[in-house]
Parts: sequence; structure tokens; C-alpha cells
Amino acid sequence: MKRIAESTVRRLSLYLRFLEDFEQRGQPTISSDELARRGGTTSAQVRKDLSFFGSFGKRGLGYPVAELTAQIREILGLGREWKVYIIGAGKIGAALAGYRGFRDRGFVVIAVYDTDPRKVGHPADEFSVRDMGQLERDAAREKPDIAVLAIPAEGVQPTVDRLVKAGFKAILNFAPAQIQAPADVTIRTVNMALELEGLSYALSNRD
Amino acid sequence: MKRIAESTVRRLSLYLRFLEDFEQRGQPTISSDELARRGGTTSAQVRKDLSFFGSFGKRGLGYPVAELTAQIREILGLGREWKVYIIGAGKIGAALAGYRGFRDRGFVVIAVYDTDPRKVGHPADEFSVRDMGQLERDAAREKPDIAVLAIPAEGVQPTVDRLVKAGFKAILNFAPAQIQAPADVTIRTVNMALELEGLSYALSNRD
Repeated sequence: MKRIAESTVRRLSLYLRFLEDFEQRGQPTISSDELARRGGTTSAQVRKDLSFFGSFGKRGLGYPVAELTAQIREILGLGREWKVYIIGAGKIGAALAGYRGFRDRGFVVIAVYDTDPRKVGHPADEFSVRDMGQLERDAAREKPDIAVLAIPAEGVQPTVDRLVKAGFKAILNFAPAQIQAPADVTIRTVNMALELEGLSYALSNRD
Repeated sequence: MKRIAESTVRRLSLYLRFLEDFEQRGQPTISSDELARRGGTTSAQVRKDLSFFGSFGKRGLGYPVAELTAQIREILGLGREWKVYIIGAGKIGAALAGYRGFRDRGFVVIAVYDTDPRKVGHPADEFSVRDMGQLERDAAREKPDIAVLAIPAEGVQPTVDRLVKAGFKAILNFAPAQIQAPADVTIRTVNMALELEGLSYALSNRD
């Protein structure tokens, strides 16, 4: 299949949220106009994005909600379970370990790691924190799909290097750090500091 | 001052991270090439972004690290403290309440709120959770700047409406929800679900 641009993948994720709402309410079809309005984009953009799925939206009738929802879920790889390791058992790591939103979408946390001997063996949410020293051995056995990095910025690059060597192809990073990784490893960063600074900029520069 | 685009503000935040690194290491100047390389952009883009600050980068000499750092911090409104209310004392809310990264950048959490009577009065990190019912009264007295929303998606819009009425002009949202707000209210969303779906898409569509 044709490779989809990251910006398109993001919009598909957004459309999926709205479609799931509509599906729950039992609405059978949705127009590109309605998806555009809710997603803050244009109906031309919506039609372009959804053209990846062939032409099953009918002019004047809109898209069938259930089919489109299923198709987007399939494209996004949400039909299956992904095994997640959380690296870092600090406050953010522990909160993520217990975050229902992960499991609801098929992202199943199977372990939490830390280097701190005071944390290893102690609970983080429902997990007993594992020693970072055993990560490679565990990964070889459990074949996790995604690593979630919840560690301080200065440790991020060496940890990523290690995760890449251990075979991880997908990393979700919560540290405010720029990361280098091979092209076949996908890294997404959740940058809270960046968003906060956007807010402080807006507050500082009000008319 | 000229209004800066959101994408530029994001890049300024990124440059600031690198500049702070360089400042700590005592490096006196930095070239637009080096900032571009670290920020994953072009040196032309860096020069354009930094032209907002006047022309104090000298051709061939680069930008003075300390001055540029101070200027960007000033632009981003990081010279002062911002008072933050956290709405939602669940796992994410409690973790955010104790997150050092907030305070380090001048975002000072002063209270955590919840509607659940089982949580009100109980601790969330170092805070005693306050009843959401007293938010308006507290806000009138304490004049908080930023609300951080860590509540389920379905409650987000009514809560935002309430926060807007209570005078908040800046909201950081952690729920996977699309929000409507007046133009003078700035909302940033940290969308973990979106980032995770980007990873599952990448994992599902590997060659």
C-alpha cells in the first residue's frame, strides 16, 4: 500500500475519534463536510485523506460510518494488541503504567523498568518494577513492540541506542529531548514543555 | 511586537533546549547551521526564525549563546512564574501535580481539583484535592493563569466552558478531545493516543 504521510496519519486518528462518536450514537453515514468541521480542516482535505481507502464514500450520501471506522482502525494497526514496555518508574512512568487509555486502544503495558535500585522490585501501579539490567533478556523473550520513555532528558539518547539494539522499532518519548535513531525506528515525542511554552508565549503576548 | 506563528514558537522552544545545553557547557556562540542540524531544520529557517530578535547574530561568528537564550526565554514568557490549576486527580493529574519539569520552567502548580467526593480532601502528590465546586471562588481569589485538564474526554467541553467563564486564557488538555473555545483562549493538547496510533501505524506498515 502507498505510504501515508505523518500529517495524514494524524488526521486519520482525529477522524477516527469523531467516527467512533457517531458510531456510538448510531448515525449510519457522515459527510466530508461534517468530518471537516469537527476536525478543523476542509472537506476537500477530508476527501483526499479518505481517498486512500478507495471510493466507497458516495457523492451526496456521505461515508458509511461503520465501514469507514473499521477501515481506519485497520490502517492504523488498531485491530491487534501491541506490547508496551515503560522505561522509567518515576511519577510519569507510574501514571502511564496505570493509564486506562493505553489498554482501551490495544496498547498493553507488560512491564515497567528503572535503573534505580530503590525502585526495582517495588510496585508501580500494578507492576513490580524490573531492573533495567534485564531489559535485553526480557525483550528477547517477550518481544515487546513499543517502548515508552519516561526518563530525564539527559538519559534519553543512550537509552534509545540500547532499545534500538534490543530490537525496538517504535518509541514514545516523554522527555524534552531531540533523539537520533535509525530510519526504520519510529519515534514520537509527547512534549509537555513545548506545549506549556506555547501557552506562556500566548499569555505573555496578549493584546 | 509582531505576532509569531505557532510553528515558529515551537521551533523557538526547541532551539531554547539546545541553547541551554550549549550555555551549560560554556560555549559562547552557536551557528545557524548547528542549531538547524540539532533542530532538524535548515539554517535558512533558523535565521528567519531568529530574525524576530533583530540582527544580533554576526555573519561568520554565529549567535551569542547567552544573549539568544535570554531573548528566547523572554519571548516565550519564561521570565516569570505562571500559576497552574490541575483539573482531575486521577493517575495522570496526580503525576502532573508532582512533575518537576513544570516547576523547573516556572509553571507552579497551586491546586488540584476533582468532582469525585472520594478524592476531594485526599492527597494528590503534595496537594489536598479540592472540590471542583469551589473552583470559581478559588480562581477569583488566586488568579491562576493556566488550567491543565486531566479528565476523561467526555467531560472536557463542559469543563472548558466553565474554565473560560472563570477567566482562564490558557488550557493544556491531556484528553483525546476536540475543544471549542473563544479566540482569546489558547488551548494546547497533549495527545498521547494520537502519538501511539502513529506508532501502531508505523509498526503495521513496515516493509
